[in-house]
Amino acid sequence: MSKVKINKVVVAYSGGLDTSVIIPWLKENYDCEVVAFVADVGQGEEELNGVEEKAKASGASECYVADLKEQMVAEYIYPTLKTGACYEGKYLLGTSMARPIIAKAQVELARQVGADALCHGCTGKGNDQVRFEGAFAALAPDLHVIAPWREWDLVSREECLDYLAERNIPCTASLTKIYSRDANAWHVSTEGGVLENTWNAPNDDCWVWTVAPESAPDTPEYVTLKVEKGEVVWVDGEDMTPYNALVYLNQKGAEHGIGRIDIVENRLVGMKSRGCYETPGGTIMMEALRAVEQLVLDKTSFEFREELGVKASQLVYDGRWFTPLCQSILAASNELAQDVSGEVVIKLYKGQATVTQKRSSNSLYSEEFATFGADEVYDQSHAEGFIRLYSLSSRIRALKNQN
Amino acid sequence: MSKVKINKVVVAYSGGLDTSVIIPWLKENYDCEVVAFVADVGQGEEELNGVEEKAKASGASECYVADLKEQMVAEYIYPTLKTGACYEGKYLLGTSMARPIIAKAQVELARQVGADALCHGCTGKGNDQVRFEGAFAALAPDLHVIAPWREWDLVSREECLDYLAERNIPCTASLTKIYSRDANAWHVSTEGGVLENTWNAPNDDCWVWTVAPESAPDTPEYVTLKVEKGEVVWVDGEDMTPYNALVYLNQKGAEHGIGRIDIVENRLVGMKSRGCYETPGGTIMMEALRAVEQLVLDKTSFEFREELGVKASQLVYDGRWFTPLCQSILAASNELAQDVSGEVVIKLYKGQATVTQKRSSNSLYSEEFATFGADEVYDQSHAEGFIRLYSLSSRIRALKNQN
Amino acid sequence: MSKVKINKVVVAYSGGLDTSVIIPWLKENYDCEVVAFVADVGQGEEELNGVEEKAKASGASECYVADLKEQMVAEYIYPTLKTGACYEGKYLLGTSMARPIIAKAQVELARQVGADALCHGCTGKGNDQVRFEGAFAALAPDLHVIAPWREWDLVSREECLDYLAERNIPCTASLTKIYSRDANAWHVSTEGGVLENTWNAPNDDCWVWTVAPESAPDTPEYVTLKVEKGEVVWVDGEDMTPYNALVYLNQKGAEHGIGRIDIVENRLVGMKSRGCYETPGGTIMMEALRAVEQLVLDKTSFEFREELGVKASQLVYDGRWFTPLCQSILAASNELAQDVSGEVVIKLYKGQATVTQKRSSNSLYSEEFATFGADEVYDQSHAEGFIRLYSLSSRIRALKNQN
Amino acid sequence: MSKVKINKVVVAYSGGLDTSVIIPWLKENYDCEVVAFVADVGQGEEELNGVEEKAKASGASECYVADLKEQMVAEYIYPTLKTGACYEGKYLLGTSMARPIIAKAQVELARQVGADALCHGCTGKGNDQVRFEGAFAALAPDLHVIAPWREWDLVSREECLDYLAERNIPCTASLTKIYSRDANAWHVSTEGGVLENTWNAPNDDCWVWTVAPESAPDTPEYVTLKVEKGEVVWVDGEDMTPYNALVYLNQKGAEHGIGRIDIVENRLVGMKSRGCYETPGGTIMMEALRAVEQLVLDKTSFEFREELGVKASQLVYDGRWFTPLCQSILAASNELAQDVSGEVVIKLYKGQATVTQKRSSNSLYSEEFATFGADEVYDQSHAEGFIRLYSLSSRIRALKNQN
Repeated sequence: MSKVKINKVVVAYSGGLDTSVIIPWLKENYDCEVVAFVADVGQGEEELNGVEEKAKASGASECYVADLKEQMVAEYIYPTLKTGACYEGKYLLGTSMARPIIAKAQVELARQVGADALCHGCTGKGNDQVRFEGAFAALAPDLHVIAPWREWDLVSREECLDYLAERNIPCTASLTKIYSRDANAWHVSTEGGVLENTWNAPNDDCWVWTVAPESAPDTPEYVTLKVEKGEVVWVDGEDMTPYNALVYLNQKGAEHGIGRIDIVENRLVGMKSRGCYETPGGTIMMEALRAVEQLVLDKTSFEFREELGVKASQLVYDGRWFTPLCQSILAASNELAQDVSGEVVIKLYKGQATVTQKRSSNSLYSEEFATFGADEVYDQSHAEGFIRLYSLSSRIRALKNQN
Repeated sequence: MSKVKINKVVVAYSGGLDTSVIIPWLKENYDCEVVAFVADVGQGEEELNGVEEKAKASGASECYVADLKEQMVAEYIYPTLKTGACYEGKYLLGTSMARPIIAKAQVELARQVGADALCHGCTGKGNDQVRFEGAFAALAPDLHVIAPWREWDLVSREECLDYLAERNIPCTASLTKIYSRDANAWHVSTEGGVLENTWNAPNDDCWVWTVAPESAPDTPEYVTLKVEKGEVVWVDGEDMTPYNALVYLNQKGAEHGIGRIDIVENRLVGMKSRGCYETPGGTIMMEALRAVEQLVLDKTSFEFREELGVKASQLVYDGRWFTPLCQSILAASNELAQDVSGEVVIKLYKGQATVTQKRSSNSLYSEEFATFGADEVYDQSHAEGFIRLYSLSSRIRALKNQN
Repeated sequence: MSKVKINKVVVAYSGGLDTSVIIPWLKENYDCEVVAFVADVGQGEEELNGVEEKAKASGASECYVADLKEQMVAEYIYPTLKTGACYEGKYLLGTSMARPIIAKAQVELARQVGADALCHGCTGKGNDQVRFEGAFAALAPDLHVIAPWREWDLVSREECLDYLAERNIPCTASLTKIYSRDANAWHVSTEGGVLENTWNAPNDDCWVWTVAPESAPDTPEYVTLKVEKGEVVWVDGEDMTPYNALVYLNQKGAEHGIGRIDIVENRLVGMKSRGCYETPGGTIMMEALRAVEQLVLDKTSFEFREELGVKASQLVYDGRWFTPLCQSILAASNELAQDVSGEVVIKLYKGQATVTQKRSSNSLYSEEFATFGADEVYDQSHAEGFIRLYSLSSRIRALKNQN
Repeated sequence: MSKVKINKVVVAYSGGLDTSVIIPWLKENYDCEVVAFVADVGQGEEELNGVEEKAKASGASECYVADLKEQMVAEYIYPTLKTGACYEGKYLLGTSMARPIIAKAQVELARQVGADALCHGCTGKGNDQVRFEGAFAALAPDLHVIAPWREWDLVSREECLDYLAERNIPCTASLTKIYSRDANAWHVSTEGGVLENTWNAPNDDCWVWTVAPESAPDTPEYVTLKVEKGEVVWVDGEDMTPYNALVYLNQKGAEHGIGRIDIVENRLVGMKSRGCYETPGGTIMMEALRAVEQLVLDKTSFEFREELGVKASQLVYDGRWFTPLCQSILAASNELAQDVSGEVVIKLYKGQATVTQKRSSNSLYSEEFATFGADEVYDQSHAEGFIRLYSLSSRIRALKNQN
């Protein structure tokens, strides 16, 4: 296949083995300048330390690191949380939510440096390629997209390491790597190894951030969160930015083994895969929001929020963030979240985050209404009329059938 | 209000204080024969022991006890489980699912004994009145319905006890009762008392069946379940009937503090209430079914099953079992459940039921497809075409916007 | 029943027989001042002429007429149109959309004049009582609501006329009235008479505004509409306000027999009713919006808009305008409507409004992409990859089943 | 690209230019035996006459013609009709519904003759390739699929004609063909030519089966249909098979210009296209079913049927017939259709099919309930209770907001 002519490409660079190979490969195969883009989405110092030097050592002309941590939580995670999205009932979308913000920042850098192409290091079997390229299509339809994993013929870590060695590019990556991992401020995921057989239980080394529930403290710990319009704004006595709240809760949650998920999920590309995900802080935030909703959303609003959650989980997972449909769903859930303000206490114990107390000034719960005495707002005699009309079509249908 | 003329009424009788008052009240106020109907839905021996004598001592001409336990699990709970219904994201519908089967059996008895009226002891503020009367409307629109709590002027336990004492009807009920409870094979619910303030954490005595996670064994226990077409058919080495499987899992779950829920929910009648629910065996069953679904349902089927679950949770909660809509939903979820067969291992530990192993002969998961090597079914080069078409409308829209 | 104590009540007054009786009845039964409120929602001069004198002659202390025509189209009808709402597939919600705006203005007047009660003249079998009182509950939960038709014992026109005659209140209403009608700028509805048997075809006199298709001109007429962000802003060469556009299109449509509907519908109160509705201009507007959507909404957005339409049709019909759920739906559809701008030509002929030409600067349709030659954006070879992944789970499932 | 080794391929053959080229092309490029398969889905005698000879003259070793007409209407169209599916609000899915049945019969023939490959003549830009290959994936994942339009480099009719001429294969196809058409018993579609610009109105020659409304009779005609469990079983005095009913109604409808649609739609492959579709008999059937539903479906069932229709329209359009999801949807709509029995009279006039009379023994409509007098089933005083509870959460929320 003849390659298109590229002058300058911005590559989403992680510092890992794959993207270290990609830089020289791009230069050789496209004869173009390669600019490395590193998104700091909270993946941790270990990955970020020295990443610029590494990129340049691999042949990048420049390396830009963008701190997207606060923006990711505020503009991608919090809106998603308001929808209640939880993919296939379990997965809190940690990797999915990071992709659109990285892609967007990458496009912005490409515009800034005058690049005519974008490159990512996602494999051809996963979701991330679709998420990146879906964002690129919506934000930069004019830029060329290069997906080396679908182009080159390297198929193993060994070949990648050889590729670098042949070019004298330093690399500290090990020859074998049992698990495939992805981390950001919200979660860390682990795939591969023992997990490839669904009849295997996860090993201890499938978990990165959280202690095993069995190793968690024998005494529960309690955290208190304040939620305003569907967003966590204050934890344990302190106002916190979205990212700081997440970091704080991650630490608390991890200590108590909170937020472990072991799931077989449907990838967008038609196959199933299995992963172990850890979302300690996110699990606590999710519980908090849902608990406040219990107080403030009426029955039909709650049901619609659940429907929005199912839809949003698909859209976010499928990398459709920058679509009119996703924006419409977010507008709807944001509207519902206007009442979602309150305070909750959450007990952390041996892998579980359990809301034990909750209150809200918007609460529709009222002790007087709910208890079984008389009150002014609710007249028990109204129930008869309600029931008669509520079941009227059943009654008419049954009467017809009796005739 | 002048009462309609009733000859014989069948009352849903529990042996508790309320229904003990209802029998003489019906006789005095409607001058009719009162037949007591007791549904054994697994509420326990304590409630059932001597219930016939009690009914007659209260003035019932006859008392029929119907064992509905197997039928309830097989015909009401299992179909609901296939939908994934979980009301407002938390509540496994324990009380809701029992109502239609009790109402149906009560109607059948009324036909058998030639009664012209049906009576229940539900209050005017709750959901159960709607569930009973919704079923009555669909099954016996010609029978009169009497709801004493909406008619009489007794408003306290004390008045009820006095009512019985004045008539020399023996009653062992205590003057004070902190909590309002409902139990069947599937769950036990607790409302009232300390729970009436949502800012109070539940007390220890809010929980009936399950130990506190803190008091559960320090060592996990594992159970293995076989699921066929969406139904649990075998547990830990033995074929089991639906009810027996539930009893077995209830015991295991309760020992490990599984299935506690503390929720503020929207009642159908427009107000919110708070309850603590315990569903130990049901929680384990739910995890098992959802885990097998992870293996066998494709992406769009899974999403639809989630939507069906949201809808079914509303219909079952709202007492709309005997409606064309509910039957349509159940037909849809039953169709999806045809592939839901497999085996799961579930770890029980300190309040959590966690699936650790799962397999199915219908599994769409395949190690070869999911891993990142080459295979025959999936050609990575297909991904490019997929992505291009999948994001084509985004691309076109973005190109238009650039012009 | 002892009446609550009322000082001043604002009654939604139409000038018809019912509300003319209501004024003296309120004064006699509640011993209170009665303020008449007349909402001009485009029902026509005939109803409005002399309405203030009539109200005062009936005993109202004051009569306020509010011109709500522009506001109704701009703030209630246009937002609803964006959702595509069409109740039970047919009914364009003419009466439903007028109720919340009338109720809201009535509440505002009550605040202004210091009233402590609100009154409407809707019967106890219809939807409108729920719509009015639903709005009152949301906007003025502290004000008392009086619904005379559910209180008094007048059951016929004759009794109403006698009631007025006994009190020497002038009234020009006729003794018999075959049909029950409701009109506003958007539509006129006709119920009763021959329509009460669904096996009767409508008579000629069931239709008020529109000519029969058979009597419409033998030559088609064409109108051109400009739509901006989902709203009609220009018709046949002229910028028009929402209300003026509607009036203009009503006239054109009526001349060509456009917008007749004969439907049996489910009322909110559990029974079915039959009505003939005429919505000439609205039908044309609906066609225009849906046609522009064909050009600009992508596949998944279009499907969601259809789902929003189904939901909105229920909410608007059910009088739930002032609820968080309805506002959430409207936020979602408004977001989708941001692209819905364009121009359409509509042919009016013998009862049908047919879009014959359409264009939009946001159109995702592109001659080059759609035709079967080669192009740059769409590479036919991509289709293979798309299809392979799109049907991958089917293929895996089928392969499993073959083994 | 090296071709896979094929021994015998079954090609979906129409007798048109494309598939006439495909036969020799397959033999030359795959060096295999080619068996022609012709599905008679009611496309008309013109296409079928001499089709076997033509196939053999093109080089097919055998040609099988299968009469699928009754089966298509009974097993594909009627089930779809019960869902109410209408793609993007307009298109009655004529081409979409024919594809799965053709693909299924083609697979059956392949099994019978021991073929190892399947071939279709769909282009690489359309939906039909996905529909065929989606069905193949579900029914014959082991058979190889050949899509010549995505493989060869012929790009015009001229090149196709030359290809045949060079090989002395007789062909009567004309050099130019303005429109692309597809016909079966249900509909005929027309694309291309003047329609490629959405601002052009359709020409007279865009319509094949139906007269223009302007040319239709000046006098209305009436047809009467009997519907049983959602299926048309009797028309104008005669029991009819599904196919015969369709043929009869097609003729009546076509005479009156019924069932013309001019739509810009979203193709599954991400682009938009425009088509003129004629579905005269289908439009009449659709009206009939929906009218009976008005009588028999309660409010919530009707709403769910509308949701099912939206979903089914997508699934059928997208070629996902043989998926668990589609079968689940069909199970749900079939359940709802159990009550959909009745009789309707439909007026045909100048392009419109209008139901004027309808009745059903399952009708939930009742004159007594709907009119405004007193009755036994509906007590107007019940409305107050209904409204109070129905709007209770609004009231509570408003009271909270006032404080």
